[in-house]
Amino acid sequence: MSAPPIDRAEAERLDVANPLRGLRAAFEIPEAEPIYLDGNSLGRLPKATLERLTGLIRDEWGRDVVRGWDAWIDLPGRTGDKIASAFLGAGPGEVVIGDSTTVNLYRLADAALQARRDRHVILASAGEFPTDRYVLQGLAEARGLELRLLEPDRVAGLQVADLVGSVGPETALVCLSLVDYRSGAWADMAAITAAVHEVGGLVLWDCSHAVGSVPIDLEGSGADLAVGCTYKYLNGGPGAPAFLYVRRELQDRLRQPIQGWFGQRDQFAMGHPYDPVPGIGRYLVGTPPVMAMTAVEASVDLLARTGIGALREKSVALTEYLIRLWRTSLEPLGVTLGSPVDPDRRGGHVGLRHPDAYRIDRALNERANVRCDFRAPDVIRLAPVAAYTRFVDVWDAMDRLRRLLESGESLEMPGELTRVT
Amino acid sequence: MSAPPIDRAEAERLDVANPLRGLRAAFEIPEAEPIYLDGNSLGRLPKATLERLTGLIRDEWGRDVVRGWDAWIDLPGRTGDKIASAFLGAGPGEVVIGDSTTVNLYRLADAALQARRDRHVILASAGEFPTDRYVLQGLAEARGLELRLLEPDRVAGLQVADLVGSVGPETALVCLSLVDYRSGAWADMAAITAAVHEVGGLVLWDCSHAVGSVPIDLEGSGADLAVGCTYKYLNGGPGAPAFLYVRRELQDRLRQPIQGWFGQRDQFAMGHPYDPVPGIGRYLVGTPPVMAMTAVEASVDLLARTGIGALREKSVALTEYLIRLWRTSLEPLGVTLGSPVDPDRRGGHVGLRHPDAYRIDRALNERANVRCDFRAPDVIRLAPVAAYTRFVDVWDAMDRLRRLLESGESLEMPGELTRVT
Repeated sequence: MSAPPIDRAEAERLDVANPLRGLRAAFEIPEAEPIYLDGNSLGRLPKATLERLTGLIRDEWGRDVVRGWDAWIDLPGRTGDKIASAFLGAGPGEVVIGDSTTVNLYRLADAALQARRDRHVILASAGEFPTDRYVLQGLAEARGLELRLLEPDRVAGLQVADLVGSVGPETALVCLSLVDYRSGAWADMAAITAAVHEVGGLVLWDCSHAVGSVPIDLEGSGADLAVGCTYKYLNGGPGAPAFLYVRRELQDRLRQPIQGWFGQRDQFAMGHPYDPVPGIGRYLVGTPPVMAMTAVEASVDLLARTGIGALREKSVALTEYLIRLWRTSLEPLGVTLGSPVDPDRRGGHVGLRHPDAYRIDRALNERANVRCDFRAPDVIRLAPVAAYTRFVDVWDAMDRLRRLLESGESLEMPGELTRVT
Repeated sequence: MSAPPIDRAEAERLDVANPLRGLRAAFEIPEAEPIYLDGNSLGRLPKATLERLTGLIRDEWGRDVVRGWDAWIDLPGRTGDKIASAFLGAGPGEVVIGDSTTVNLYRLADAALQARRDRHVILASAGEFPTDRYVLQGLAEARGLELRLLEPDRVAGLQVADLVGSVGPETALVCLSLVDYRSGAWADMAAITAAVHEVGGLVLWDCSHAVGSVPIDLEGSGADLAVGCTYKYLNGGPGAPAFLYVRRELQDRLRQPIQGWFGQRDQFAMGHPYDPVPGIGRYLVGTPPVMAMTAVEASVDLLARTGIGALREKSVALTEYLIRLWRTSLEPLGVTLGSPVDPDRRGGHVGLRHPDAYRIDRALNERANVRCDFRAPDVIRLAPVAAYTRFVDVWDAMDRLRRLLESGESLEMPGELTRVT
């Protein structure tokens, strides 16, 4: 077996020189192994989160019990504001957290469709993350609308040019991921939003694979609506609550379909018909998940201190390095790049494509001790998360992948999909 | 001031004799004070929950990260099954947890209305818990239906007789609380369900104030649909996820409106149009909240070992005792009973009514160190939760209430509603 032409010592030098080298210590990383490149499925645990949660459970729930709500009641808006300013380019009172991405997507999509009742087309990508497609399909069927699925280039993702001839006066809503969950393609939010606004439609952005990884400017790009999860690059924990954004001027004009008591004016009077508070608060629904929101807040506080600028800078350096290693050692072995080469159009993860990707992914996980995941039909996703991934982690993972391919060991793996990510 | 005619020594004897006296030690109760009678807003923390959550966060999220999902993926159904068999009289595969009560109520109400598209009336109680009314109001307005609100007796709650002349061939859905959040009135689930079925309507029961407090027989009573929260008598923690129940034979015939990837057949293939799994799994939506579900499971495991029979027996003894104390020492002071006298028609909490209830509740909380809450317009709610409330707690609370009223101290409290419960 030939050694890769870029040696590990360079990775070590890059780690020593990187300004974020100290941030890894803020996370719970019991051992160097496995090499964790699956942070875009579930980000690692910040040490501060464990401490904060233990305090919450023992001291607030355990001691204050119901009185804890005096502080907890602000969590959806307070944490939303922090995410808004640190990661979304949104203002105070434009973001709240609570519920799942799927539920939030449903609520905002339905609100948008109600606001464009005279139009009958919903536009999305055929390669969109499944839950988004299922939600839109359900809404289209229930409301008698047409869900039109575009087929953008699988690597480059959706371009403004793809919208030409697809959007028109019949377009009610365009719903898209800002960063594609397989390729990592980073869509041009401002240009696409402008193109949809041109024909009078509304745009709902799913920022799940983008938030905490790429800088987002919801206000500056003119986005109407957005949702996103907090358990990937925001390290909020498994099943952490999602956020939702509604542009300020739309908040009181749209009507979200699930009217709950946390959106009610004078909530504890409990007596009136539904009369929602003005602003983003009316997008709250039921009693929000206090432990999960607290975990999100603890992690957002940590990451906001570093800032998206520094996180993005290291993220680009890591994926650029990964792509250099791919070019020198994996491209010759039949692996193709499933992500944009231009870092300005690429998020925080890289897709590598191979016809036998499923078995290679299993071999990487089960024999080479590299955590990454497979996305059908042929993508191995690698997410070197800036906050805690080292250049040596990338070097080691790529070296192990090269060895697996050279030895043919992955061909011994069974071919059935069982793992959950 | 006169001493109450029932002395504290009797309460002490009742505590010593009670078979559940040891269960209190399973909960985190830092001090004897305050006297906590607000468990129907938020139940206390089981010690096992703190231990279980610390392990989950540190060892599963912290160490296993995304691999944790191999175990977490079963939580919605596994915990649902446990609640079903221990507390709901439902079978395996009929209950899942996840999302809030409000979101679950919306989903099941919408599914029921879709299944009864030829009918135009939703029936509920004017005194129903607010979020339920808001959800139904929103659905009625969006679907062009009529929400008809009944005005049952405020203490006795809704009776079958109230439905005569109200339900008919136009009734699509009746949505009711099994135990009323103010009075504690326990509705006759079987009789009311039968009356609605008689005219071909569906019934959705909100079991939030009932589950873990009264025995529930969803299967035996013929209930179609049910939801309920887990943060009251199930001690699942602040904002814990709610459960939902769909009678087995309805599961594949109803269509819930939020189609998400956790309900999809072969979820991680990710490629097909929405094709839900058969059974209760199709009522799952987005990525479920792992920490919150784990807390629910830990607490349900604890309470299921005691069993609803024993919990209910102590609960009845506590509320009977509370009512005896009310009759001897508070009725003479102008406090009326806002709950059914018959324990077979009363849940786990008792409402005491007084024209000045708001200020009395504040004085109880802020001066007498008794945690309870006010419900407009005139109810003080007291929930002596069987799992950890002692007879002496009830005696002390009622004695302090008597002293407050005799001294007139509550009249010094300000009159504006600010507290959250």
